Amino acid sequence: MQSQAQNLPTTLNGIDLAAFAGAGESLVANPELGQVTFRAKTAWQGRLKSRTEISTWDAGGQTIVRRHRIDADEPLEILGENTAPNPQDLLLAALAACMSVGFVAGATRAGITLESLEIDTECSLDLRGAFGLDPNVQPHAGHIKYTVKVRGNGTREQFEQIHREVLQLSPNYNHLAQPMAFVSELIVTPS
Amino acid sequence: MQSQAQNLPTTLNGIDLAAFAGAGESLVANPELGQVTFRAKTAWQGRLKSRTEISTWDAGGQTIVRRHRIDADEPLEILGENTAPNPQDLLLAALAACMSVGFVAGATRAGITLESLEIDTECSLDLRGAFGLDPNVQPHAGHIKYTVKVRGNGTREQFEQIHREVLQLSPNYNHLAQPMAFVSELIVTPS
Repeated sequence: MQSQAQNLPTTLNGIDLAAFAGAGESLVANPELGQVTFRAKTAWQGRLKSRTEISTWDAGGQTIVRRHRIDADEPLEILGENTAPNPQDLLLAALAACMSVGFVAGATRAGITLESLEIDTECSLDLRGAFGLDPNVQPHAGHIKYTVKVRGNGTREQFEQIHREVLQLSPNYNHLAQPMAFVSELIVTPS
Repeated sequence: MQSQAQNLPTTLNGIDLAAFAGAGESLVANPELGQVTFRAKTAWQGRLKSRTEISTWDAGGQTIVRRHRIDADEPLEILGENTAPNPQDLLLAALAACMSVGFVAGATRAGITLESLEIDTECSLDLRGAFGLDPNVQPHAGHIKYTVKVRGNGTREQFEQIHREVLQLSPNYNHLAQPMAFVSELIVTPS
């Protein structure tokens, strides 16, 4: 029995299966651990550049240090210096990265070994809207197109089911698909 | 007259004022130049990591090469390796970077010199939703909080007006505030 247990796979798609199951069980037993807060500080860097610093997030009542940096700029054609992805690039990455996590989690839950997973995303808009040149032109893209290309040992039906679950469960897909509310404050310091 | 013209500022907030005015005039004269498409390719990198590559965008009927990379990962506490910002961090950065561009453009249009501009963003959610553990728990954050801290030689009223314009004109603010439609395709290759 011991040798049989040792032969069972302990990871799938790089994910530790015991940790994966344990994370779910832990959240069911202690729902308060599921409360998380993401926060970012974005500072203008001159012209149309900005730098976003992630330094902490809250999970399960604790504030955890975690340092990441996300630079943004506009292309030359929109008066930027093209030193970094632009805000729409970042939005597409935020969507596809979140859906990617959902696909991997769904496949792992279903016992499917993934070989590759790619998500192509695209959105089109009319700059006259964002430039405030025509009030009849919307500033934003009306829709986002995406294509998921997945290779693995699941059936088409299994991957379709995982896709449906991703649309139900992905935070960023739903952040976009559903109207977001905002709570804002403007602090002005005269110079 | 010549010396007076030479003393006029040619840039404000790092932005070339002639190019700024010219971009608007060009879009009014040639509306088709305003049609742009952003696209991204996101590939799974094992575990919960992904890499998004930006390689082209379309502007004014031309496809323009522009290379940027956006990595994503999850924190250790969500079974990731914390090698990069997570999808929610990227979403907050996409929002704040876009609003930052809008504030700088609005201030520059109003002749205001900015000294600094910071946007703090935050969203909270319950991981039990995204983990699919409780159908009564939403997977997404119901709202995003943000604080704009601006220092410059404009009045409070001017900055409030710019803030209102940003909410009207910012693509990513509106991508989130309004429900986004999606057009999707799933391509499955058996391994």
